[in-house]
Amino acid sequence: MTEMYIPTFQDALDARERIKPYVHETAVFTSSYMNALTGAELFFKCENFQKAGAFKVRGASNAVFGLDDEAAGKGVATHSSGNHALSLSYAAGRRGIPCHVVMPRTAPQAKKDAVIGYGGTITECEPSTSSREEVFAEVHKQTGADFVHPYNDPRVIAGQATCSMELLEQAGPLDAVVAPIGGGGMVSGTCLTLSNIAPETKIYAAEPLNADDAYRSFKAGHIIADDAPETVADGLKVPLKDLTWHFVSNHVTDILTATEDEIIAAMRLIWQRMKIVMEPSSAVPLATILKNNDVFAGKRVGVIITGGNVDLDKLPWMKS
Amino acid sequence: MTEMYIPTFQDALDARERIKPYVHETAVFTSSYMNALTGAELFFKCENFQKAGAFKVRGASNAVFGLDDEAAGKGVATHSSGNHALSLSYAAGRRGIPCHVVMPRTAPQAKKDAVIGYGGTITECEPSTSSREEVFAEVHKQTGADFVHPYNDPRVIAGQATCSMELLEQAGPLDAVVAPIGGGGMVSGTCLTLSNIAPETKIYAAEPLNADDAYRSFKAGHIIADDAPETVADGLKVPLKDLTWHFVSNHVTDILTATEDEIIAAMRLIWQRMKIVMEPSSAVPLATILKNNDVFAGKRVGVIITGGNVDLDKLPWMKS
Repeated sequence: MTEMYIPTFQDALDARERIKPYVHETAVFTSSYMNALTGAELFFKCENFQKAGAFKVRGASNAVFGLDDEAAGKGVATHSSGNHALSLSYAAGRRGIPCHVVMPRTAPQAKKDAVIGYGGTITECEPSTSSREEVFAEVHKQTGADFVHPYNDPRVIAGQATCSMELLEQAGPLDAVVAPIGGGGMVSGTCLTLSNIAPETKIYAAEPLNADDAYRSFKAGHIIADDAPETVADGLKVPLKDLTWHFVSNHVTDILTATEDEIIAAMRLIWQRMKIVMEPSSAVPLATILKNNDVFAGKRVGVIITGGNVDLDKLPWMKS
Repeated sequence: MTEMYIPTFQDALDARERIKPYVHETAVFTSSYMNALTGAELFFKCENFQKAGAFKVRGASNAVFGLDDEAAGKGVATHSSGNHALSLSYAAGRRGIPCHVVMPRTAPQAKKDAVIGYGGTITECEPSTSSREEVFAEVHKQTGADFVHPYNDPRVIAGQATCSMELLEQAGPLDAVVAPIGGGGMVSGTCLTLSNIAPETKIYAAEPLNADDAYRSFKAGHIIADDAPETVADGLKVPLKDLTWHFVSNHVTDILTATEDEIIAAMRLIWQRMKIVMEPSSAVPLATILKNNDVFAGKRVGVIITGGNVDLDKLPWMKS
């Protein structure tokens, strides 16, 4: 393995300039109802309104538009069945270069259609880690495309760091920021920004109890991976990797968990009261704030709504 | 019947000052996807993010805060099972005066809970016009409360007129504005504003084909009421009245209709691509724009998203 490059705050500032034409400065929403309910002053950073429907387009765009022309000509590649696949396809499409996505053949057709709609090319694998790695290695070898990992990539983390830069400018000084944690890309980007320009702001990672590998890693002091966790917050199943572990272990104040019922209730509450469509993963922060009132009451708290790509035919509070 | 007072643009300007502390200046959303799909440049005025979840709080607040202290002491009253009931209860609650709402006993419990949550008092009637009128007359007599009609009231129309004032300031000059039509309160307010400050902007009313009384009235030149229409756009079942007919007949360019399937498809598309929760009535404008491409292509078009109060357990595209 090559030596790990840890992105700097200058990388994040460069990312912001680089991706500006391709991403939205998303709105920050407030809700007097949510403030009354939690006793905190909440600032919801609405990345569900982001291009391709998720914050991941920030990191993907930074990777794609940071390539020199020769590398770019060979395109980019990744394995993902989620928002990173859509985001990388979108960014590559904007640059006019190929994007190769390895996806399990069992992935939802809507996700496949979205990747193709943005101009990506899908190579299907079996729904197993070994098949995915094998197929991806073959695609990578044949195309020579630049591999953009969904989160364990310094360019991706520098891109995600632009989200909390905007949030601070929009909301003003914050006592805390709460972001969902899966692989840790968003949380790492948040750490990169806040540790540099708002070191007094506490960073909380919010995780489903059913996929609490980051929580257990944080308490143990080393990475622990879950074995095929099942949670409604399907964007948060993946484990920490060395680069994201670096940021999480050094800068996160605490990791808070929520049950499936708590996540679904928080998601429904946000839809009902704030009138926004967002995905289950994005509801984990509010779920943890609601159950940790003592931590957040009286505080000015940023809440990252990470994405809005949800299957409208299968909402988690509906009887199936 | 007393002589009809037609609100003036000064009434609308006064309304804007009066209600400013109690309503949001709601966001205007754009969507490159929707623009590509329609060939128009669309500006969605998001009243789903409004206080109490709908534009109706503008008119209700104007009525409530325009009362002198003596009249206000007796409170306000209305009959409604929809957004006007919530909005009037909210406004009365902000002023600290009673709000009496006559509602059919068959109205959804969620709506009743919302009225009570804002501090309103519900008197139930049977789900028939005769029972509603009888019960309302009794409540009105006993309380002496000021009757605030959901739409056929100059104070209400002047309040609704503030919505398109904001829209023009936010979006700049528009070739057209499309708003849903039921009783005609929003459309009348839009006419009041645009005929005064943007007379070149065309006004289109969008109506469910299943409840096309406004369309038929417009074509016939006099008010025609539907007989118990059934449509998923449940906010648009009510007929025009003399005051709203005045504005519709004098200032509306055309009335366009959409089928139930078209309305549901447009609603789903807005949720999916724009990531906002809005109610079926609010989808009728986009449904009509999609099917009248020749009218809107190449134009700058304002679209009023009137509200976001929807039953999340019964979304119209779900199999029941």
